[in-house]
Amino acid sequence: MTRRPIITLLSDFGLHDAYVGMMKGVILGRCPEARLVDLTHDIPAQQVASAAYVLGSAWRYFSPNTVHLAVVDPGVGTDRRVLVARCDHHWFVGPDNGLFSEVFTDVPPDLLIAVQSTDLFCKPISRTFHGRDIFAPLAAALGRQIDPQQLGTPIDDPVMLPIAPPAAKPDGALHGRVIHVDHFGNLITTIRATQMPFRPIIRIGDRAIHGLVSNYGSVDSGTLVALIGSSGRLEISVSHGSAARQLDAGIDDAVSVEPGSLD
Amino acid sequence: MTRRPIITLLSDFGLHDAYVGMMKGVILGRCPEARLVDLTHDIPAQQVASAAYVLGSAWRYFSPNTVHLAVVDPGVGTDRRVLVARCDHHWFVGPDNGLFSEVFTDVPPDLLIAVQSTDLFCKPISRTFHGRDIFAPLAAALGRQIDPQQLGTPIDDPVMLPIAPPAAKPDGALHGRVIHVDHFGNLITTIRATQMPFRPIIRIGDRAIHGLVSNYGSVDSGTLVALIGSSGRLEISVSHGSAARQLDAGIDDAVSVEPGSLD
Amino acid sequence: MTRRPIITLLSDFGLHDAYVGMMKGVILGRCPEARLVDLTHDIPAQQVASAAYVLGSAWRYFSPNTVHLAVVDPGVGTDRRVLVARCDHHWFVGPDNGLFSEVFTDVPPDLLIAVQSTDLFCKPISRTFHGRDIFAPLAAALGRQIDPQQLGTPIDDPVMLPIAPPAAKPDGALHGRVIHVDHFGNLITTIRATQMPFRPIIRIGDRAIHGLVSNYGSVDSGTLVALIGSSGRLEISVSHGSAARQLDAGIDDAVSVEPGSLD
Repeated sequence: MTRRPIITLLSDFGLHDAYVGMMKGVILGRCPEARLVDLTHDIPAQQVASAAYVLGSAWRYFSPNTVHLAVVDPGVGTDRRVLVARCDHHWFVGPDNGLFSEVFTDVPPDLLIAVQSTDLFCKPISRTFHGRDIFAPLAAALGRQIDPQQLGTPIDDPVMLPIAPPAAKPDGALHGRVIHVDHFGNLITTIRATQMPFRPIIRIGDRAIHGLVSNYGSVDSGTLVALIGSSGRLEISVSHGSAARQLDAGIDDAVSVEPGSLD
Repeated sequence: MTRRPIITLLSDFGLHDAYVGMMKGVILGRCPEARLVDLTHDIPAQQVASAAYVLGSAWRYFSPNTVHLAVVDPGVGTDRRVLVARCDHHWFVGPDNGLFSEVFTDVPPDLLIAVQSTDLFCKPISRTFHGRDIFAPLAAALGRQIDPQQLGTPIDDPVMLPIAPPAAKPDGALHGRVIHVDHFGNLITTIRATQMPFRPIIRIGDRAIHGLVSNYGSVDSGTLVALIGSSGRLEISVSHGSAARQLDAGIDDAVSVEPGSLD
Repeated sequence: MTRRPIITLLSDFGLHDAYVGMMKGVILGRCPEARLVDLTHDIPAQQVASAAYVLGSAWRYFSPNTVHLAVVDPGVGTDRRVLVARCDHHWFVGPDNGLFSEVFTDVPPDLLIAVQSTDLFCKPISRTFHGRDIFAPLAAALGRQIDPQQLGTPIDDPVMLPIAPPAAKPDGALHGRVIHVDHFGNLITTIRATQMPFRPIIRIGDRAIHGLVSNYGSVDSGTLVALIGSSGRLEISVSHGSAARQLDAGIDDAVSVEPGSLD
């Protein structure tokens, strides 16, 4: 058992206010031994899909028993469910709105609870800041190894985002999309390394990229390249530059991959 | 007594430099068991009033004995006093320039010390970075439960910002102001939930909002609404958007509230 | 010996993604007692010189045995060396590309290892994120007090940036440059306090500043001033404003200092 639980935090709250700090105050008041790690609080406001990707790419780098608190919650104050889940010995807590789609697709949860008890919540429960009043107390409780089955009832229908897996089309190409634009302007796609054909030709907008490079540093600055990024997905990058800016591209833009000729 | 004290940090230093990191290095060198929590370092440069609001909204979510280090310090290097205060078993340390106005208005301090001893300070004391050289060492000392009365002399006249409480005018309306614009563009006002009339009409600029909603998610995207936010104050918001941008509004803009008609 | 080692992190990864969070997950998985402190992750992308300055200004404010993990790594995936160094009882780990130039200039390292063993690395080692797969595991190992000499071979030729020290020219002036622009728009220069003449005249662009002030608060708002900043270097500032914006100045701009007349 972990005596000093790790609790990660991911949100769209930004760092301009004390919203994240307040959540941490609530957690440390209820689980004083917690070690808090920010994943990011710079998810674009209410972009659940972007949050789902970032969380899905990060959680496995933490130890078993880590609690992952995620709050991107456009439905705060409505009747969307409050979710606690366990996947591969990691805990997840947040609104049931698809935030955990990538995690659940990779590793089906072995426990899913819709929280109904309000006993642990901060009172009065605000209508607009469930991160502080509901999710932070639940994360702290999971850090203290409370049994979540006492908090609510098992469910088997968590909300899943309709994240289209890359599709093979009659033209022989695999069609995917940009799902995240990172700090460097790299365009991260839905296409995974395992799906890449031999000598691929990658198309985005009116540009075609022939083949993959192995890293950003092996080509001239400003060159548009494709590579398998650190999350195991096809990324489109500009060496020492920003692909998002050079291509004026962003989330949801179409990307396709086709096998190159063999001669 | 807390063996692992929590020390919160709030400043206008941003995260572009290592200024905050240096403060943390100093604190951990002198109070190795401290748990450090950032409230925010994104206070607009030298905006003491904005910092006072953010700190005032956040401190109560931490446990008793927490030390709150706040450094927004346009007078650094001048003869403004160095303040240590205790309110409701929380400690506060920072420049005596009004930073703690909201805290002291909510809970009058039961101990106020103007620090005179320089024994604990980092030497040489820079003229421009008292956060590192003066306030961080004091926060660490409070974390180690030093008696602050040995650091200076009691005072009873801390600088208080002239934060005008909302005023009822002869027209029957309550007149307040925007005191903070948050990450989402919500306009947070000086008007508290307890002051709101029945069926209020809220006016800002040339717009009038009839009534309050209970949360952001209950109206169509882009709708201008008013609600009681998570800090217990009247907020003006745009559902899934930014009220600051839609109204081109910001800090100090006038907001009024009047009772609506009963029919 | 430190039982709860401090590990600082500096990078150009930004806070928009979970890159920093993943590094922390790896570190805490391997060195659960580590206390993690961010220096900054807002180094301009791939600007090794800026990172070298920020790290050089900050590391001494931490306790002995602190591990400083720095990843600004335009050569990730190429054959640039992986460096572990010890200076004055502090540990440094990062790519061998000049990141530690300021540290090594101030305090020559007493141990320099080019890491060759891949035993500790996260597998598979990505081509693009050595911060997570190589440097974070090494920082964790140093936090656990592993002997770095078992990781590789001693070297004595770390890459050093050609950071030109300020030069005295035939015109009698000292010629330096801006090496960092901080959050407030202060222009921090290569010229150190110890090099300043009596009654200096500071020139930047077509502006001349006569003499130094001792702090930002002692002149009218908007005044262009020069002072010795908290890192012991000549800074050019605008009181309650931004020198970078007022002068449209930035990194690498020339700054000169000459002795003023005595009458």
